[in-house]
Amino acid sequence: MVGSAGHGDTSAGAQVVTASILVIGDEILSGRTADVNVAHIARRLDDCGIRLREVRIVPDAQDRIVGALGALRGAYDYVFTTGGIGPTHDDITADAVAACFNVAIFVDPRAVDELRKRYSEDELTPARMRMARIPNGAALIENEVSAAPGFMIGNVIVMAGVPRIMQAMLERVLPRLRHGARMLSLSLTVPRPEGEVASPLAETQSRCPDVAIGSYPFVEADGRLAVNIVLRGPDAQRLQRVADALAGSLGELGIAVESCSQS
Amino acid sequence: MVGSAGHGDTSAGAQVVTASILVIGDEILSGRTADVNVAHIARRLDDCGIRLREVRIVPDAQDRIVGALGALRGAYDYVFTTGGIGPTHDDITADAVAACFNVAIFVDPRAVDELRKRYSEDELTPARMRMARIPNGAALIENEVSAAPGFMIGNVIVMAGVPRIMQAMLERVLPRLRHGARMLSLSLTVPRPEGEVASPLAETQSRCPDVAIGSYPFVEADGRLAVNIVLRGPDAQRLQRVADALAGSLGELGIAVESCSQS
Repeated sequence: MVGSAGHGDTSAGAQVVTASILVIGDEILSGRTADVNVAHIARRLDDCGIRLREVRIVPDAQDRIVGALGALRGAYDYVFTTGGIGPTHDDITADAVAACFNVAIFVDPRAVDELRKRYSEDELTPARMRMARIPNGAALIENEVSAAPGFMIGNVIVMAGVPRIMQAMLERVLPRLRHGARMLSLSLTVPRPEGEVASPLAETQSRCPDVAIGSYPFVEADGRLAVNIVLRGPDAQRLQRVADALAGSLGELGIAVESCSQS
Repeated sequence: MVGSAGHGDTSAGAQVVTASILVIGDEILSGRTADVNVAHIARRLDDCGIRLREVRIVPDAQDRIVGALGALRGAYDYVFTTGGIGPTHDDITADAVAACFNVAIFVDPRAVDELRKRYSEDELTPARMRMARIPNGAALIENEVSAAPGFMIGNVIVMAGVPRIMQAMLERVLPRLRHGARMLSLSLTVPRPEGEVASPLAETQSRCPDVAIGSYPFVEADGRLAVNIVLRGPDAQRLQRVADALAGSLGELGIAVESCSQS
């Protein structure tokens, strides 16, 4: 519903903070691993009033990472990357980020200190030391699960791909970011096919352009089609008024709303 | 591991067929709905020897859909879109695709025939007729779940967002596409942190550049770090030989492979 991808949009006077996600990993594209990080990050950003506007998934190939990162970091306030910061030969995210920012990358003593919290000197193999290679000028993002840190450079936040580690890093970094006005949502479930509610929905949307109205069909357990109607906006009272008006229009067509929940 | 995004690459003499996915939907970006279509499509493309090389998720905004579609359809053999072809005001994918191909869009009698299989004349409301709007020159992709068809125009395959409907459309369209040499994979599970296997992995990868070796750490139920090593290539015997060599190198370091499976 919201078309602009730019920085610093304003909506109802509140500053809009935008973000994108870059998932890096052959294993997601081959279907071997189902990504669960996007859904988690999307929910947490929504909690913080940060609007996720685009996601890209690319392979473990430097040119592809650099290309996508260049496009995303110019278009959104923040870019979150997941994957490719481990100790093995296919972990090339840190190098790609350094190339994208045109900065040097070296073993960072602060990152080595983090690794020492977990590993003895014997265990600090060259492979593990690879996880301490951080682009020049980046701030570390510690994590208590694996000890190997992520980092933030400019508006790019680089995190692990393993969900538990990624989640720990995300919680560390979210308080450091600008947050926006939280989008509230109000969902109506209607046990009818989407086609039967389309006309009152379109009418309500055109009368109330300040509330984003989405319509999400689903198949019920018994095979019947139903629809979730989701109203989104920053003002709870306004959402409730628009929902009441919509329920009224549906009622005129003999269509009852099954449930209504606000979040 | 595989860097090129272009059409018609050749690898070991076999033609490589490439694809991308464009997921369209505010509900995925807001975190309200977790996408499950990417993982499903990725697995089915892998079965068909079609290499998925990029995924993008964009909002329900025409400029964003047209922009992403333009980039993807120029870079890959096929683009699969999901979402935004229902009957409501926020379903704008068909219009965006028509705009991208610069063709007219109108109510297609073939699509109306499909809808008539499910709906009586009374039930064919203007909203439902909206689902019969198909860009000029497109081939329909029938589906038995909802009756409303998807379509294929040029190298772009337009499917529903509801997983059951999308899956039905995907099975209809896959036989019409070019398939490539199937990538086989062989997975080794090693109950040790990734850092301990990195050196033999890198060594094996540099000796065997024809096999793509990926390393995917995970956290075991008891909290210990372990790693799946995945070898991918078109030749099963070659994969097995490389896996045996790798297991040998790991054995020299006192590291045993816990399980090995081919698919």
